[in-house]
Amino acid sequence: MKLDHIGIAVDDLNAAIHHYETVLKIPCDKREIVESEYVETAFFNVGEKDISSLPLGFIAPKVELLGATSPDSPIQKFLNKRGEGIHHLAFEVEDLEGEISRLKAKGYTFLSEIPKFGADQKRIIFLHPKEHHGVLIELCQSV
Amino acid sequence: MKLDHIGIAVDDLNAAIHHYETVLKIPCDKREIVESEYVETAFFNVGEKDISSLPLGFIAPKVELLGATSPDSPIQKFLNKRGEGIHHLAFEVEDLEGEISRLKAKGYTFLSEIPKFGADQKRIIFLHPKEHHGVLIELCQSV
Repeated sequence: MKLDHIGIAVDDLNAAIHHYETVLKIPCDKREIVESEYVETAFFNVGEKDISSLPLGFIAPKVELLGATSPDSPIQKFLNKRGEGIHHLAFEVEDLEGEISRLKAKGYTFLSEIPKFGADQKRIIFLHPKEHHGVLIELCQSV
Repeated sequence: MKLDHIGIAVDDLNAAIHHYETVLKIPCDKREIVESEYVETAFFNVGEKDISSLPLGFIAPKVELLGATSPDSPIQKFLNKRGEGIHHLAFEVEDLEGEISRLKAKGYTFLSEIPKFGADQKRIIFLHPKEHHGVLIELCQSV
C-alpha cells in the first residue's frame, strides 16, 4: 500500500487553508464538498511538485483538511470530542474488495459494511482505530 | 516543504512493527535508537518502492513508529496522556535555520531553542501544536 493522504480535522476550513499555505508554503490544490459525509475538504500536494518527472501511477502524498458542514458530521463529532488535529491516514490500494476480504479474514473490523464514495474520486472504507495502535486507517481506491 | 514522515507513538514497538507489516503489506526498512530522545524508531517507506525510477532528491514519505526507551521519554509522556496514535507530521526543508527565522518572524513558537539531532540522520525542530490546528509539526533537514 502507498500513502495517499493525511486527513486533518479543523474548526474553520478557510482559516486552516490560509494557515497551512503560510506555514508549509504549499498552495491549496482544490476544495471539494462531500455531501454524504457532511464535510468540506481541501487538498495540498505535500510530495513532489513536478509530476511530469514522475513515473505513471505515482501517488503524491497529500494533506486533506476536513471541515464539518453540519453538526451531524462525523468530523464535527471528532472535533467536539478531541479538538482539532490529525483524523486519519489514507492508503491507496489497487483492489479494495480484495483488501477488505484479506483484512476481515485476519479479524479486523471496518467502520462500514461496504465502501462509500469520498473526496477526490475515490471509494473509501475505514478500519477501526482501536485495532491499529490508535490510528484511524482509511483504505481508498481511485474510481 | 515536502512530507518526510508521519510519527506514530506505540506502546510495544515489536508488536506494532509486526502489525503494520501485516496490515499495510510494507516491510520495516530500518530501526534506530535515538538515545538523546529516549526513543526507538522503526521506518516504513509508504511511497514509491522503485526509487530507481524517481528523480534525484525525491523524498519518499515514511511512517515512523516511535517506542519509548525510558519513562522520561517525551513519547512515554504522550502515551500516558493520549494513548497510542499519530504523534507528529515531519516536513523536509532545505534551509532549517532560514525556516525557523521565517516562522519566528510570523510569531510561531518552537518547542526548543535550537534544532536537535533526530533519527534518519536529520536535524529536527518542533512547532507548537496549539498554533497549528492541533498538529505537532516537525521541520527536518538531512545532515
